[in-house]
Amino acid sequence: MSHIAFIGLGHMGGPMAANLLKAGYTLKVFDLVPSAVEAAVALGASAAPNAVHAVTGADVVISMLPASQHVESLYLGEGRLIHAINPGALVLECSTIAPATARLVHTAAKARGIAMLDAPVSGGTAGAAAGTLTFILGGEAGHLERARPFLEKMGKNLFHAGDAGAGQVAKICNNMLLAIHMIGTAEALNLGVANGLDPKVLSDIMRVSSGGNWSLEKYNPWPGVMDGVPASRGYEGGFGADLMLKDLGLAMEAAQASKAATLLGGVARNLYALHSARGHGKLDFSSIQNLVAGEKLS
Amino acid sequence: MSHIAFIGLGHMGGPMAANLLKAGYTLKVFDLVPSAVEAAVALGASAAPNAVHAVTGADVVISMLPASQHVESLYLGEGRLIHAINPGALVLECSTIAPATARLVHTAAKARGIAMLDAPVSGGTAGAAAGTLTFILGGEAGHLERARPFLEKMGKNLFHAGDAGAGQVAKICNNMLLAIHMIGTAEALNLGVANGLDPKVLSDIMRVSSGGNWSLEKYNPWPGVMDGVPASRGYEGGFGADLMLKDLGLAMEAAQASKAATLLGGVARNLYALHSARGHGKLDFSSIQNLVAGEKLS
Amino acid sequence: MSHIAFIGLGHMGGPMAANLLKAGYTLKVFDLVPSAVEAAVALGASAAPNAVHAVTGADVVISMLPASQHVESLYLGEGRLIHAINPGALVLECSTIAPATARLVHTAAKARGIAMLDAPVSGGTAGAAAGTLTFILGGEAGHLERARPFLEKMGKNLFHAGDAGAGQVAKICNNMLLAIHMIGTAEALNLGVANGLDPKVLSDIMRVSSGGNWSLEKYNPWPGVMDGVPASRGYEGGFGADLMLKDLGLAMEAAQASKAATLLGGVARNLYALHSARGHGKLDFSSIQNLVAGEKLS
Amino acid sequence: MSHIAFIGLGHMGGPMAANLLKAGYTLKVFDLVPSAVEAAVALGASAAPNAVHAVTGADVVISMLPASQHVESLYLGEGRLIHAINPGALVLECSTIAPATARLVHTAAKARGIAMLDAPVSGGTAGAAAGTLTFILGGEAGHLERARPFLEKMGKNLFHAGDAGAGQVAKICNNMLLAIHMIGTAEALNLGVANGLDPKVLSDIMRVSSGGNWSLEKYNPWPGVMDGVPASRGYEGGFGADLMLKDLGLAMEAAQASKAATLLGGVARNLYALHSARGHGKLDFSSIQNLVAGEKLS
Repeated sequence: MSHIAFIGLGHMGGPMAANLLKAGYTLKVFDLVPSAVEAAVALGASAAPNAVHAVTGADVVISMLPASQHVESLYLGEGRLIHAINPGALVLECSTIAPATARLVHTAAKARGIAMLDAPVSGGTAGAAAGTLTFILGGEAGHLERARPFLEKMGKNLFHAGDAGAGQVAKICNNMLLAIHMIGTAEALNLGVANGLDPKVLSDIMRVSSGGNWSLEKYNPWPGVMDGVPASRGYEGGFGADLMLKDLGLAMEAAQASKAATLLGGVARNLYALHSARGHGKLDFSSIQNLVAGEKLS
Repeated sequence: MSHIAFIGLGHMGGPMAANLLKAGYTLKVFDLVPSAVEAAVALGASAAPNAVHAVTGADVVISMLPASQHVESLYLGEGRLIHAINPGALVLECSTIAPATARLVHTAAKARGIAMLDAPVSGGTAGAAAGTLTFILGGEAGHLERARPFLEKMGKNLFHAGDAGAGQVAKICNNMLLAIHMIGTAEALNLGVANGLDPKVLSDIMRVSSGGNWSLEKYNPWPGVMDGVPASRGYEGGFGADLMLKDLGLAMEAAQASKAATLLGGVARNLYALHSARGHGKLDFSSIQNLVAGEKLS
Repeated sequence: MSHIAFIGLGHMGGPMAANLLKAGYTLKVFDLVPSAVEAAVALGASAAPNAVHAVTGADVVISMLPASQHVESLYLGEGRLIHAINPGALVLECSTIAPATARLVHTAAKARGIAMLDAPVSGGTAGAAAGTLTFILGGEAGHLERARPFLEKMGKNLFHAGDAGAGQVAKICNNMLLAIHMIGTAEALNLGVANGLDPKVLSDIMRVSSGGNWSLEKYNPWPGVMDGVPASRGYEGGFGADLMLKDLGLAMEAAQASKAATLLGGVARNLYALHSARGHGKLDFSSIQNLVAGEKLS
Repeated sequence: MSHIAFIGLGHMGGPMAANLLKAGYTLKVFDLVPSAVEAAVALGASAAPNAVHAVTGADVVISMLPASQHVESLYLGEGRLIHAINPGALVLECSTIAPATARLVHTAAKARGIAMLDAPVSGGTAGAAAGTLTFILGGEAGHLERARPFLEKMGKNLFHAGDAGAGQVAKICNNMLLAIHMIGTAEALNLGVANGLDPKVLSDIMRVSSGGNWSLEKYNPWPGVMDGVPASRGYEGGFGADLMLKDLGLAMEAAQASKAATLLGGVARNLYALHSARGHGKLDFSSIQNLVAGEKLS
């Protein structure tokens, strides 16, 4: 049975590790927050005093961290964790980070004979808890087969986007597009309501017409149109506006690195920045409906 | 059997009239273009020398014209067609026009005891020919039941959006949202390709993820990703960029009339204006992919 | 001595009429608001019971109304004021309205032998009171010479922009550009302050560098940087955000009529719509600084 | 007399070094391009075989490099040039780079007792040749006095923006605002011309009205309106669109680092990206007029 090192036990990493433990795997875990470690230990993990200790002797290393700088610092910084990982081990780096950073870690891993996949997820904390995450993977196809048993304990869908870093690129593109159709949906609903339409009737029409998109299908941003979504509980829970702002920032960085034009993506990023500057960054990202409507929704 | 007057036999009106004739209805038709009238006559319609003559004695009046000013001029201008229509007749105004104009005609119709629905369509010339259009209707619900037999000869889906003008509002909102997710999709694909991804792989991932939308599902804008769409035949056919520019113009007018904010809608309108200014207005609207990519696609 | 009819005695028209009275002209005035008429009468004007009465026998007709529909209704509507004006009279239409509406009135005036100029102003209520307005004129150059004595009592600068409607076009272009550099200035100051700069130091640098513009020179939007401007008195007074929203709406209409692309103009219009939707439409337009900064400024 | 090390002799650095040589200073120079070094040697400089050799024993070190990564690599990379510079020396880092990178070098310099100023310039190659550059400086005020004699040989205006990195922040803010009013001016002129105005007449009106800005005053983007500017010679020469795209990229990075909203700045960046993607990156940045006008200008 594989020996797994798991680093980063936050809102996402915690439940992901829990699902691996439930499946019977042996986990050595590390996080800077003691209570996060204790929660995993309570489920059967053993606690490592630091990251190097966690990965020593591990067959599989999984990390889930907040941002590019944490990943770069963990693997390539002072401690140079990459040197403590066994050649031949498999690294699944699940954080959502800049493709360039992912490629830096890939290069260092490859030089040491470590098999790595960048493996950002979508599905949020609910998907992490339910083990229904989507993994978007970058790296060699052969590594994917080796990773599949572990990933399938934490998620439901696996997509192979391409070579090193491609998982990050695909996730960034997807989330930029999500932000755009969410704001677009919010604008269309606001325009319709301002011109006398019922938001539910309009949503029903657009959902099955050429305006159709995931926001209308699964995550309607207008309060009261759809049950069980953040819009119908004061925009609490879900995927925070500040996290969307972060992902749009990664999209803008990727656009700059490749000189690509992203007009709507740029406006989307800045609308989330305005929303965050108003103090709404912790609300679900569909609360952008309220920015568009002039903060008049309850 | 009803006696139908049909005014406006262009790319949309022509095949719509043909489907009514095929269903056995009696049509008196008028258009300023003689060849359009001749085509309808060849299918069994009788030609009226002018619009007043066409509607005289008709139970049902159907009109399909290019823009607001044509509709206002037809019904309320010099000839005041509305006065030539029988009280008790049913008017189906199928043009895509400003909600305010539609409401003007509604008011005049109601004052004379005429039952009117604004009934803009989606589905394009192919839907018009196949009789699979979607009608988005504004006006009294009772009128809708009366109109159903006629509409069902020309279309497949009927949506009741609300009161007078609501059909236009819903169509405008839907098409603004369509433009936004089409451009958003074009930006995401361009960003992905610029960062090394395969456009088909990226499309497949986003289509079934939270980026999913009608453009990815039915109308992929990147050449070669999807068979049978305009992007795979040089952006010929389909729904012209200039028509989308016109619909976005209607959305901007509606936004101004109601002081609604449409940030992405505004950028979308202006990108189609840039595209049109470059001489690409006759291409399918998914050719906006080429604007985003720097005119580098074949 | 000329006999002047003055119609529209609001915040702008009132002080403009007062300056003509001060210069010794005979004025017959009309406004729907009795107190506005009384104020002019107290300065020596005679009150007309309606607009037709006011213009009957006048050599010069001056109008200053809120928007296109008021001007169209006044001159071309039910009462058809244009028919009550003497052939040979001079009409100075000072409202800020759509160029297309101005051209409609020009055409009707010309048909009757009336000399007309569209003559929108800039300079705000302070300029109206001080007689230092700028007039931007559209119409025949010869009319301008005839109008000069009257305009110089109300304003300081006269620009001849071109033929009928050109005054409105130039005003609309100018105000769109004003909105753009005001928001641009607000974004630059906010970005600088967010990165540790002093807003006054940054303003001083940009003002004399290539970032220089009228907003930095005369109307700094950051509270406390410049004395005597709205930003330094809670954004009270000045040129209201809702008025700028109206002018940007006219710019968008002109852009649509000519299929011109106005990317920044479109975003500017929508940011003022967001600001107005938040209830800040009565504040000076430089309060857009607060929208950009996340409503954190005092 | 001071001994100056000058690193980076490109289009800007070359003429800057020439002006110091003309003023009688002793320069030891380094550049990766031999012909650039030879040109400086022909004017009296001595050539150093590498950067470390150039700075050894120098009282003043001046660098002028293309981008952040070059500056970071030069001072803090493998060679760690900062360790080869004398404690007590003065470093004038004139490149336009990310404020964060500038601060990294400041910190390393300070730790070694080196006096540093970030000193980005504006004025272009013409200003560099004429010795009329503007320097925008970040760092301790005392260092500025020490630097003044050298800076005044290369430039005309010195602005002290604030502490370490503040020169870069102010330059970035200024150039973002410049891009915004240039595009705004281009949009206003295009809108006016599309509605029948003469671009020169409209420029003259807006220049002295509230639309006034540096682009109208010094650098009109419409061909033929102003003599001696890039617009009147096919947009050749001047400040390249790709350089503006780079500076807007730095602005976007700074906005992301501070979560600031820059709606117009974001659209400006993306319009320059579109322009560059069409192959126009080498033209002067005022050629954005052509993008706005649909590439129809000669």
